[in-house]
Amino acid sequence: MPKMTPDEIEDFMKKAFPQARMPTEIEELRDGFVRLRIGVTDRYLRPGGTVSGPALMAIADTAMYYLLLGMIGPVALALTTNLNINFLRAPKLADIIAEAEMLKLGKRLAVGQVTIYSDGSDGPVAHATVTYSIPSDAMRSAKPSE
Amino acid sequence: MPKMTPDEIEDFMKKAFPQARMPTEIEELRDGFVRLRIGVTDRYLRPGGTVSGPALMAIADTAMYYLLLGMIGPVALALTTNLNINFLRAPKLADIIAEAEMLKLGKRLAVGQVTIYSDGSDGPVAHATVTYSIPSDAMRSAKPSE
Amino acid sequence: MPKMTPDEIEDFMKKAFPQARMPTEIEELRDGFVRLRIGVTDRYLRPGGTVSGPALMAIADTAMYYLLLGMIGPVALALTTNLNINFLRAPKLADIIAEAEMLKLGKRLAVGQVTIYSDGSDGPVAHATVTYSIPSDAMRSAKPSE
Amino acid sequence: MPKMTPDEIEDFMKKAFPQARMPTEIEELRDGFVRLRIGVTDRYLRPGGTVSGPALMAIADTAMYYLLLGMIGPVALALTTNLNINFLRAPKLADIIAEAEMLKLGKRLAVGQVTIYSDGSDGPVAHATVTYSIPSDAMRSAKPSE
Repeated sequence: MPKMTPDEIEDFMKKAFPQARMPTEIEELRDGFVRLRIGVTDRYLRPGGTVSGPALMAIADTAMYYLLLGMIGPVALALTTNLNINFLRAPKLADIIAEAEMLKLGKRLAVGQVTIYSDGSDGPVAHATVTYSIPSDAMRSAKPSE
Repeated sequence: MPKMTPDEIEDFMKKAFPQARMPTEIEELRDGFVRLRIGVTDRYLRPGGTVSGPALMAIADTAMYYLLLGMIGPVALALTTNLNINFLRAPKLADIIAEAEMLKLGKRLAVGQVTIYSDGSDGPVAHATVTYSIPSDAMRSAKPSE
Repeated sequence: MPKMTPDEIEDFMKKAFPQARMPTEIEELRDGFVRLRIGVTDRYLRPGGTVSGPALMAIADTAMYYLLLGMIGPVALALTTNLNINFLRAPKLADIIAEAEMLKLGKRLAVGQVTIYSDGSDGPVAHATVTYSIPSDAMRSAKPSE
Repeated sequence: MPKMTPDEIEDFMKKAFPQARMPTEIEELRDGFVRLRIGVTDRYLRPGGTVSGPALMAIADTAMYYLLLGMIGPVALALTTNLNINFLRAPKLADIIAEAEMLKLGKRLAVGQVTIYSDGSDGPVAHATVTYSIPSDAMRSAKPSE
């Protein structure tokens, strides 16, 4: 059972990263899984009308962070240690859907995979695996921001 | 619909790679998916009784190759260009189950993910993404070995 | 010998990606190598005062693209197919230095590595390997914008 | 200054992994760097006469492990957590040279890159980045086997 609700995660993100403006919406959150919808706005565009590679990398990293927050609670200091992404198809000019699935939640490392789609399209536009390092006292102190 | 049956793939592998001795069995093959079972034998062991990392990497590479054979037919010259693997849990002394899923089958590159389990255990022991380069005439000439 | 000068690359980037505003400066360009300096501005900051992970990923991707432009000339349609990054140390609030080295420039794929530093610090803050897919007619038609 | 000599590393490997038979020779070992030579034997061959991809992955993993042993002393329980490899050129039928460089040696994670060559050839045949997880008490207890 998640340790934070979607609303708690979005509140936490706004306070912890006030300048981050990625327009995310949590569509589903359950143990080991989160689905985000990201509205496509001009700043993600590039010539040819596709969402840029760096935007997709930021989305993969964000989706995994949301999933980690949902599963261990508000740990601002969890850090990405590795991200591997394959770009598969050109995104369409539609909302981006990112689905993150936890592969392992250990004491020191969390590893997940993120599959990214254009809304309404067949086949993923990108697939990433992401590893986060978890601070050594996070598993003890983390709890929902009640 | 697969272009080769499990038996055709195993025959092809024996002829193309006679010295490869990985004891694989194709448990399921359908469009975009293959599941292999690999019997654990002494030569994969390492201290602590777990299947070695290099053996898991070879298994990930092999599972993706089997899936590619199933989808495009016998193309001996397809080459791995990138493999990224996360080791998640210590394998048990049980058969290894590898499930490969195609993420994109393009004209020049095929990208898939492989999730590797110990038979009977919860949670994967490793997860890999694998990219194969497809020879430029393979999509034209490849056909089942009828 | 590079096919584009630093000035030609920066002009090409401004025309091809007018909305990209990463403040890059090419410090050195030679066959198989480029060094970029990226001024740190507010929009890259995150809590704790470090350059964000997504900014480092964008820098790695950009450095490899600049190197590719320098080696094959203006090919707007080269696309990133894979990026793998390890985050090693927290960046300081200093300029970012990115050094890209070509590992292989083939007809279809270019693979390079990018090592990213904080100016004046010991040890890299991140290391990436990046693969670009090259359009099939690029090696014939590409030439400097004379 | 390395904590183990090449001879100590090779002795340690023979005792810790008696069934591993990779014919390695440490050509150079200094702080943050090791160069291995691996004699090519029949069991690494594949059709076309090249060293197999799985053999190159095992070599990358081994080179990084040797480097870690050299830098922190005999820690049998260090585990690979991530390996990313790009295959660049077909190896020749010549000895394999693997050069491992430490990118970061932290308390919990060690990240390095390994560049693999065919002896006498231009350009690497493969490039890998490898992450090892270090047991939490390894940095205290590790010392050379005096």
